[in-house]
Amino acid sequence: MAHAQTTTRKKLIADWQTLNRIFIRPEDDVARKALVKYMEQILFGLHDFLQRHVGITEEASLKVLADRFTDTRLSEQPEKRLADVISDLVNEIAPHAVNVASPYFIGHMTSAIPYFMVHLKTITAALNQNVVKAETSKVVSVVEKQVLAKIHRLIYQKNDAFYAEHVQSPYTALGGFTEDGTLANITALWVARNGLLPPKDGFTGCESEGVAAGFKAHGIERCVILVSRLGHYSLCKAAGVLGIGNRNVLAVDVDRHNRIDLNAVKKIMAAIEAEGGRTRILAMIGIAGTTETGTVDPLAELAAICARHQIHYHVDAAWGGPTLMSRKYRHLLNGIQNADSVTIDGHKQLYMPMGCGMVYFKSPYILERIAYHARYIARPGSVDLGIKSIAGSREANSLILGSALQIMGSQGYALLIEHGIETAQAFADEIRARALFELVSTPELNILTYRVCPPGFKQRLQTADTDLQKQLNAQLNEINRQIQVRQREAGNSFVSRTTLYPGNCLENPVVVLRAVIMNPMTNTQILNEILDEQQAIYRQMKTGS
Amino acid sequence: MAHAQTTTRKKLIADWQTLNRIFIRPEDDVARKALVKYMEQILFGLHDFLQRHVGITEEASLKVLADRFTDTRLSEQPEKRLADVISDLVNEIAPHAVNVASPYFIGHMTSAIPYFMVHLKTITAALNQNVVKAETSKVVSVVEKQVLAKIHRLIYQKNDAFYAEHVQSPYTALGGFTEDGTLANITALWVARNGLLPPKDGFTGCESEGVAAGFKAHGIERCVILVSRLGHYSLCKAAGVLGIGNRNVLAVDVDRHNRIDLNAVKKIMAAIEAEGGRTRILAMIGIAGTTETGTVDPLAELAAICARHQIHYHVDAAWGGPTLMSRKYRHLLNGIQNADSVTIDGHKQLYMPMGCGMVYFKSPYILERIAYHARYIARPGSVDLGIKSIAGSREANSLILGSALQIMGSQGYALLIEHGIETAQAFADEIRARALFELVSTPELNILTYRVCPPGFKQRLQTADTDLQKQLNAQLNEINRQIQVRQREAGNSFVSRTTLYPGNCLENPVVVLRAVIMNPMTNTQILNEILDEQQAIYRQMKTGS
Repeated sequence: MAHAQTTTRKKLIADWQTLNRIFIRPEDDVARKALVKYMEQILFGLHDFLQRHVGITEEASLKVLADRFTDTRLSEQPEKRLADVISDLVNEIAPHAVNVASPYFIGHMTSAIPYFMVHLKTITAALNQNVVKAETSKVVSVVEKQVLAKIHRLIYQKNDAFYAEHVQSPYTALGGFTEDGTLANITALWVARNGLLPPKDGFTGCESEGVAAGFKAHGIERCVILVSRLGHYSLCKAAGVLGIGNRNVLAVDVDRHNRIDLNAVKKIMAAIEAEGGRTRILAMIGIAGTTETGTVDPLAELAAICARHQIHYHVDAAWGGPTLMSRKYRHLLNGIQNADSVTIDGHKQLYMPMGCGMVYFKSPYILERIAYHARYIARPGSVDLGIKSIAGSREANSLILGSALQIMGSQGYALLIEHGIETAQAFADEIRARALFELVSTPELNILTYRVCPPGFKQRLQTADTDLQKQLNAQLNEINRQIQVRQREAGNSFVSRTTLYPGNCLENPVVVLRAVIMNPMTNTQILNEILDEQQAIYRQMKTGS
Repeated sequence: MAHAQTTTRKKLIADWQTLNRIFIRPEDDVARKALVKYMEQILFGLHDFLQRHVGITEEASLKVLADRFTDTRLSEQPEKRLADVISDLVNEIAPHAVNVASPYFIGHMTSAIPYFMVHLKTITAALNQNVVKAETSKVVSVVEKQVLAKIHRLIYQKNDAFYAEHVQSPYTALGGFTEDGTLANITALWVARNGLLPPKDGFTGCESEGVAAGFKAHGIERCVILVSRLGHYSLCKAAGVLGIGNRNVLAVDVDRHNRIDLNAVKKIMAAIEAEGGRTRILAMIGIAGTTETGTVDPLAELAAICARHQIHYHVDAAWGGPTLMSRKYRHLLNGIQNADSVTIDGHKQLYMPMGCGMVYFKSPYILERIAYHARYIARPGSVDLGIKSIAGSREANSLILGSALQIMGSQGYALLIEHGIETAQAFADEIRARALFELVSTPELNILTYRVCPPGFKQRLQTADTDLQKQLNAQLNEINRQIQVRQREAGNSFVSRTTLYPGNCLENPVVVLRAVIMNPMTNTQILNEILDEQQAIYRQMKTGS
C-alpha cells in the first residue's frame, strides 16, 4: 500500500505482547472506539459510505495510482495499527476504488449489494469454517447441502421424494459452490469430458489416464464443444484447462435476436457426423443471459437436440439463472430443467458479495466422475464436501446465500429481477425515441446494447453496400469508443463497451455501448441523464473540443 | 436452514418498500440496536464469542443435525428479519460449527485468525470490488500487483531493478491469487503443461489444440509429474483436470525423514529416459511442508536436478511458505528461490480468513501461456488481472493480505511461525518421554505425528518379523482409530488422524495421530492435557468401558 507519513506515536514493534494483543482484541479503548466508528459506518451506512467515494475508472489516473504502489519490500516491524490501516482503506483506497454500488454504474455485472450481505460475510469470516471437510465445518456442511438442494429445486423441480433422498445424502451431490462462474463452467465441462471418455476395456478412464489415452481407447481424434458466438470466454478457458483445446470450442452463429442459430447447430452436427466418429461432441452449451446482450438461447430446443444425440447439455445461467425466481419471467428459461448441468453465479443476480459461483447437476450421481479422496480427510461416505469439488479449502458461501434467501424470499429476488428487465425495456424505448442513438440489441433480460448513430449515418447505412457499411461502421466505432472512454473518465457514470458482429459477419465489427440494469436504484431518470451526457459528449466531439 | 418458530411480529412480505429498506439499512432503531450488539460481539469479542461455542466434530450428532436441514422449498415471502437470521447464526449454527479457533483444536490447518482479519474481510466485502478487471476494481488491481510483488520478493529475492520493472507492469505478472492451494497447484501445472507442449511447426500449442494433439505434435505418448508419496491430493486432481491423468502423478518413495528420496527420483528418471522420449516429465514437485508430516523436501537438490534436465520445478509451499518470514527458520526452505512456480496459502500460515491461495512464478512472462482475452474486458495491455487467472470474478483478498502485512510486519508472522515450530518440538519431547506413546514423525516445521503404542507393543515390534509387524500394527491402528474418534466425540480437543507407510511399505499401514501447531494460544500445558486425555481414553478402552 501507499507510504503513509510515519506515525508520531510510539514505534511499532512486533513482540509477543503486541502479538497477543493484535490477535485477540484492540489494544486499548481509544483504538476500539476508532474501530467501532469505522465499522458502524461500513456495516450500517454502506450506501452512504460508498456514495461519498464515487470513482469510476479512469485510465490516466490508474497510471498515476500505480506509481504510488511500487514499494515491494516487506517491512520487518509493523508499519501501522489496525485503525490506521482502516483509515487508509476508507480514505486512501476506497476513493480510488470503483463505486460499483452507484446507480450510475451500469457497465458491468457487479453492482450494489444489500447492506445485510456484508453482515453475513462478516459472520462467515468470523466462524472461519473450511467446508472442504466436516471436521472443519460440521453443521455448515449440512447447511450447504440444504442450500444446494433449494437452488437445485428452483432449477429442476424434482419431486419431494427426490429431495428427501438426496438433500443430506453423503453419497450423492446436487451441485457445488465454486469461486465463480468460470470455475463452475470448468467443473461442468470436466464432468462432461470424463463422461465422454469413460473406462472401457483396459482403459481406466480419462481422469485417471488423461485425454490422449482416452481418445485412443475410444477411437477418436478430437472433441468439440458447441456454443454460440456470444458464449462467455470462460468456456474457451475451460476447454484449454481441461486439455481439449480452446479452438475446439466451436462458435456457432447467432440469429438476429442474438440466440444460437439452430440451423447452424444442425449443420455443424451433420458435418461432424460425416467425419465418421473421429470427432465427438463433448458438450452443447445453451446460454441463459449472454454476457454481452443478455439474450437467452432456445434452451428447450437445444435440450431436445442433446437428448436425441446423447450429448451433455450444459446451460450457462451465470447471469440469468435467478430469473427463475420471477413467476412473471421464469418462462424465458424454459428448458433449463433438462440441462445436465447449470452454472449460476451468486455474486451476480443473487446480489451476494464477490466470489460465489455455483454449478448444479440433474443427476445426483454424476459428480462421482470427479471424486477425490485422501487419507486424512474426504474418506468415502463422509459428508466431506471437498470430495467432489475443483477447489479444496473453501469459505462457507452457503451460509450467506441460505440466509439471504430467508431474508429476501424468492419474491424479494423476483422484484429485483423484474425491476431490471422492465427498466431495461423502458431504457430501450428511450433509446429508440432519440434520433442520435440506435438500439443494437433488444433487451430480453436486463442487458441491452446500443450506439450513437447520427441520423445521417442511419440513412446512409440503409442503402449502403457491404463495403460502405464497413466504412461507416468503422467511423461509428471510433465515435462510440471515444464517447465511452470520455464518459468513463468524466466519472459521473459508467457504461461499458464491447464489439458485436451483426449477421455473424466478422469483417464488419460494430462497437456498442452496453448497459446492465441490476441496481434497484437505477431508474429511467438516471438512464436519461446517462444518454444526455453521451449526447453532450458527442456534440463536444463534433465541435472539436 | 432450520425451521424457526413463526415470529409473532407482523408477517413479512416482499414488496418494494421492504426491499428498499432491507437493501439500504436496518428497518428501524430497534433492529439496528440488535444488529449493533451482535456485530460488536463478532468484531471485537471474536475469541470469546467462539470460545463460548465449543463444538468439535462428532459423527453421531452430525447425522442428527442433518435431519434438521432437509426442507428444500424456497420460501416465496421473507422468512426472517436480518436480526433473527443473525441470532440464528449465533445461537443455532455457531454452536454446531467447529471451533477451529480453540487452542485445543490442533487437528487441521485451519485455526484461530486474528480478530482484525474479520474487520479487513468486512471492508473488502463492503467495497465489493471484482478484481477480474480494472473497470470494477481500479486501485485495488494496483494494490494486488504490489502485494504479489512483496510475496514474490520474499520467495525469489530478485533485485530492485527487477521489481521496479515488473511490480506495476501491465504486460507481466509475478503470480496470482486463487481460491485456495488446489487451484494454485492447478494453475502452476497448467502453465507447466503448456510449456511442455508449446507451438511447433503447424501445431498451435496445447492450450489451443489440446493434450492429444500436443502429444502427437511432439511425438510423445504420456507425460508424468513426480512428487513424493506425501504430495497433497490436489496434485492428482490437477493432473486429472488438466487432461494428463491422475495416475501419471508418480508417487516417489520418501526417506526415513519423510522427504522425497533423491535416489528414487533418479531411478524413475532413468527409467523414463530409457523409454526413449515417449514419456516426458511435465513437472517435478518439491513440498515445503507436507500436509501429513510437515516435512520439507530437499528443495535445492531437486532444483538442481530440474535445471539439469530442463524440467518445470514446482514447489508446493501451501503450508510452509510463510516460514520464509522467520530469519531463524527460513533456511529450511533453501532452494525455493529456484522454483519455476510456488504455491502459498494465505488462509493457512498467513492467518487470513478462509479462501486465499496464491501462486508465484520465477519468470514474469510465463503466465502468458495461459492468457485469455475477451471483447469487453481483459483487452491486451490492460491491467485487467483476469487475463492470467484460472478464475474470472474474484474478491480482493490482496487488500486483506496487504493490510495484514502492514499490521503484523514480517517479524509478527515470524513470531507465530517460530512459536509453532518450537512448541511442536517441545510436544515431540513430551511424547518421547511418555511410555505409552511413540513419535512417528519428528517435527521439522510445526506438524508431527505420533501414536499410542504401549510398552509391550514396542518391545514386540523391535524383534518382530514383517508378518508379526503387520499384525501388531493392525492392532495398534484399531486402538489409535478408536482413541481419535472418542476424543473427537468427547469434544474437549481435536487431533486428526491419517495413515503413513513407514519404509514406503504399502502393505504395512500405520495409523497415526496428527497435530498441527499453529494457534499461538496452544502451549505445552494444553498439549499435555491432550495427551493425558488420550491416555485416559486408552485406559478406559483397556478396562472395556
